[in-house]
Amino acid sequence: MSHKIRIALDAMGGDHGPAVVVHGAELALARHSECEFLFFGDTSQVTPLLAARPALKSASRLLHTEVAVRMEDKPSQALRYGRWKSSMWLTIEAVKKGQADVAVSAGNTGALMAMSKFELKTLPGIERPAIAAVWPTVRGESIVLDVGASIGADADHLVDLAVMGAATARILFGLDRPTVGLLNIGVEEVKGLEPVREAGRILREEQWPDLDYVGFVEGDDIGRGKVDVVVTEGFAGNIALKTAEGTARQISKYLRDAMNRSLSARLGYLLARSAFRRLRERMDPRRSNGGIFLGLNGIVIKSHGGTDAEGFAAAIDVGYGVVHEELLAKITAALGRHGNEPRRAFGGAAS
Amino acid sequence: MSHKIRIALDAMGGDHGPAVVVHGAELALARHSECEFLFFGDTSQVTPLLAARPALKSASRLLHTEVAVRMEDKPSQALRYGRWKSSMWLTIEAVKKGQADVAVSAGNTGALMAMSKFELKTLPGIERPAIAAVWPTVRGESIVLDVGASIGADADHLVDLAVMGAATARILFGLDRPTVGLLNIGVEEVKGLEPVREAGRILREEQWPDLDYVGFVEGDDIGRGKVDVVVTEGFAGNIALKTAEGTARQISKYLRDAMNRSLSARLGYLLARSAFRRLRERMDPRRSNGGIFLGLNGIVIKSHGGTDAEGFAAAIDVGYGVVHEELLAKITAALGRHGNEPRRAFGGAAS
Repeated sequence: MSHKIRIALDAMGGDHGPAVVVHGAELALARHSECEFLFFGDTSQVTPLLAARPALKSASRLLHTEVAVRMEDKPSQALRYGRWKSSMWLTIEAVKKGQADVAVSAGNTGALMAMSKFELKTLPGIERPAIAAVWPTVRGESIVLDVGASIGADADHLVDLAVMGAATARILFGLDRPTVGLLNIGVEEVKGLEPVREAGRILREEQWPDLDYVGFVEGDDIGRGKVDVVVTEGFAGNIALKTAEGTARQISKYLRDAMNRSLSARLGYLLARSAFRRLRERMDPRRSNGGIFLGLNGIVIKSHGGTDAEGFAAAIDVGYGVVHEELLAKITAALGRHGNEPRRAFGGAAS
Repeated sequence: MSHKIRIALDAMGGDHGPAVVVHGAELALARHSECEFLFFGDTSQVTPLLAARPALKSASRLLHTEVAVRMEDKPSQALRYGRWKSSMWLTIEAVKKGQADVAVSAGNTGALMAMSKFELKTLPGIERPAIAAVWPTVRGESIVLDVGASIGADADHLVDLAVMGAATARILFGLDRPTVGLLNIGVEEVKGLEPVREAGRILREEQWPDLDYVGFVEGDDIGRGKVDVVVTEGFAGNIALKTAEGTARQISKYLRDAMNRSLSARLGYLLARSAFRRLRERMDPRRSNGGIFLGLNGIVIKSHGGTDAEGFAAAIDVGYGVVHEELLAKITAALGRHGNEPRRAFGGAAS
């Protein structure tokens, strides 16, 4: 790998397309001058945006395609008309061909995952990829995965998620041995699903030099930052992520309503406005924008579709970080070290 | 039923036991003078608390037991030593025997559900009970169920949850035909779990005079109040509920931190303190305290274990409301009307 970090960008992805993607790249380049960008998209739209940003333009190449995956397309539709030629496909292909170190797209999640699986294939021993989210907590940040790549999980898949999530936390948070918890519920006699219990047993009994398994955690432990890595299958993980986002929006609305109800509240708001700004920043979903697709032969970062340039730049930052710290190599090494392949080869559960 | 509403209270349940339960009953009685209370617990602790509250005392009876289910007990343990004689058991038994119209306990959820199932049995055609939560939203309140009574669900169970949840929303929110959504995730080609899709098909195609099925909803639609009733199986529902609680606590902490960082922020806080009080009230988990056990031959209300008297009173309020509006009779009628029994009798999926 050169010292440059080469980032492929789907210029047509997201609700706002090239305007946000190009501006986001400009913001990210200001922070990481060793980045190079490979834009895939419609030159008639992207060229003028690059022309207005000479510094970015000189660090970028633009490859033309008129085909763009739409936000509302089903993955099967997107694959049907977008394979080989859409900006999303070409962005991922740049990683596959070694032209880029990481791909970033704000396009439709289902299509992006389908194309990523199709092009990059899963790592040896990994059956299904996962989406990891960086989740703000009262202690800092945690990794939560899977937040929706696939539904359901057997114990081995949950263990794979723990290993991949821990590798990600080591890199993004600079930790030696991140703490890991399995998301579960605490009200049942037989606590939780059988695969969750079995994964708990494997994580407790085997040796894990790179992670510290602390046991089951519940939904309210995520925001508390009880562990660095929260492991769950994709259905519950997606529900948790969306529910947290919805609750944050709901409370923001309560706060705005409360501050507009009286003159003294409005005055108080003015006096405390730096505090409110700080609060807004901490609650800002853009700060943690960037789902990381894990378990593939290549790293793909999914940005929120509705984000602005600052948010898209945050997703590029995540991509920059995982390439700079060689996440993929570290995940592959960690999976190998944990005897992932033999366990699967002998039919599922670890002995 | 007499005009009095008779409420059985587990005086020993919860982290704080009789102090919170008796005080909570006093607060609820002030709002609903037609309540009568049946306390089950240790007279040495409860008698002095009642003696200090003459109005409450004259509306109450106290039945002695020294056995109390502990908060950390597993349901099987609780059943082993608490059956027939614990305050929790006797509270539920009062409903079974017709001595009370509803039972309220702040005791351990798993034990309360296990004893409720054991004593009250499920309604005809219902295989598993559910816990319904009253969830504050930006529009008002919604019912979310199941939030943790059981794990996993087939399509019929999800349809039962929709019917029972809609009956509850009709009563608690005074709606004719509540809107109902199935909780799902939006990122997969084949959207969501098979039972969720099958339940969606049944709810869409059959006639439901008492509910208006609007389709799938995602986690962030709950706080938005997109539907009056959110239906999901207990694992995802519990994760959603706990995650929302955790997020609310996290943002409260951010807010406190922000307001303490500078003199002007503290001054602003003072000026806006009525607004903050209002915000705190809207975010207050006590306001929506009270999980409702549905699907049993009797209504049991679960209060948060760690709540204070105001929160316990809110749980009693919920119990009062469902008895006053005859929830159980309405659920039974709605289930009958929807051909629930025949569908099951002919082997599962509706034709």
